[in-house]
Amino acid sequence: MTPSATPAYRRLSVEERRSQLLDAALGLFAHRAPEDVSLDDVAEAAGVSRPLVYRYFPGGKQQLYEAALRSAAEELRQCFDEAREGPLLPRLARALDRYLAFVDEHDTGFGALLQGGSVVETSRTSAIVDGVRRSAAEHIYQHLGITAPGPRLRMTVRMWITAVEAASLIWLDEGKQPPAAELRDWLVEQFVAVLTVTAGRDPQTAELVGTLAGDDRD
Amino acid sequence: MTPSATPAYRRLSVEERRSQLLDAALGLFAHRAPEDVSLDDVAEAAGVSRPLVYRYFPGGKQQLYEAALRSAAEELRQCFDEAREGPLLPRLARALDRYLAFVDEHDTGFGALLQGGSVVETSRTSAIVDGVRRSAAEHIYQHLGITAPGPRLRMTVRMWITAVEAASLIWLDEGKQPPAAELRDWLVEQFVAVLTVTAGRDPQTAELVGTLAGDDRD
Repeated sequence: MTPSATPAYRRLSVEERRSQLLDAALGLFAHRAPEDVSLDDVAEAAGVSRPLVYRYFPGGKQQLYEAALRSAAEELRQCFDEAREGPLLPRLARALDRYLAFVDEHDTGFGALLQGGSVVETSRTSAIVDGVRRSAAEHIYQHLGITAPGPRLRMTVRMWITAVEAASLIWLDEGKQPPAAELRDWLVEQFVAVLTVTAGRDPQTAELVGTLAGDDRD
Repeated sequence: MTPSATPAYRRLSVEERRSQLLDAALGLFAHRAPEDVSLDDVAEAAGVSRPLVYRYFPGGKQQLYEAALRSAAEELRQCFDEAREGPLLPRLARALDRYLAFVDEHDTGFGALLQGGSVVETSRTSAIVDGVRRSAAEHIYQHLGITAPGPRLRMTVRMWITAVEAASLIWLDEGKQPPAAELRDWLVEQFVAVLTVTAGRDPQTAELVGTLAGDDRD
């Protein structure tokens, strides 16, 4: 496939160009392991010259991968953005819809991003992924109206987030079955179920589960 | 600390010696990241000469780490061994007791083993860890008396296993709070709760949850 020469000569700002290259890289990561994506591949996919890609990512593959991961992490964080109004569970469902759309779009690359196990994995990339997990947990506490989550609630929320990640990877493995809408509802139900279990051991969570049940009656 | 020379000259079989060195290595991994453990450290911890350790692990640090990981994986698999008699949930509780004792004993090393993110992480070590997860799932299906778990049951079991792993890592982070016995009961309750949620979407799981409830009445 010979890329059209036109995009290479369009005048883009530094930020636009960088973002174009990262989009191209994320597109490639969606179907190939990070270690199999070269800067040359990115140049070809973006339809730009190789030297241009090397100018933006002088640190090579590792720098490109980290930048793409940061960009994906930012996109993921945006999935969690949800207005703090209306019943809680539909808010969670909407955030999960956006999250699953992200997983769907990024496919194999999503697994590579999350799982590490790639040759370019470093403590820096792990920190980026952990940052997304922490951000997901923070969003949940904010929506739940909790400023100081106790250890049992925190453990429950973090376990559920990990379970959601596992579900996403299995979902990709299983040809995206069940349909995203069913998976979303199922994950919301699991959230309520594990909180309910914790409620039996933790007054803070018990109060929360009461609120969720009240919401439901609205 | 000068190690006593005696153990170096005890006559051990090749298998005994190898196992002694792996025990020493696992002991070190319990408190240090794999990349910070050298073959020299293992020699010192085991009280043997350096050339002896190099003879057993000519592939160096990576070979030692993989061998230690395999040995830990084997130990973990043994945690899951549980007679197939009596009510199901107490069997799960006993397996979790052994698992949490393993986590407790191996501490930091457990995280390093599971999480990857270490410089010595390779697809081979990931495969060993995935093998343990698969083995845990197989044990669960066997105890549940299920030979052909459907996709929804499989996803539920795998999500729960991932959640248990996450809980173990958080548990280590939080100074092993709550106490292991409480964590164990909590994890069993979560298992029942997530299966119950799935039962609403999957006849195979619904039947299973019926069996668990029957068990409970015994």
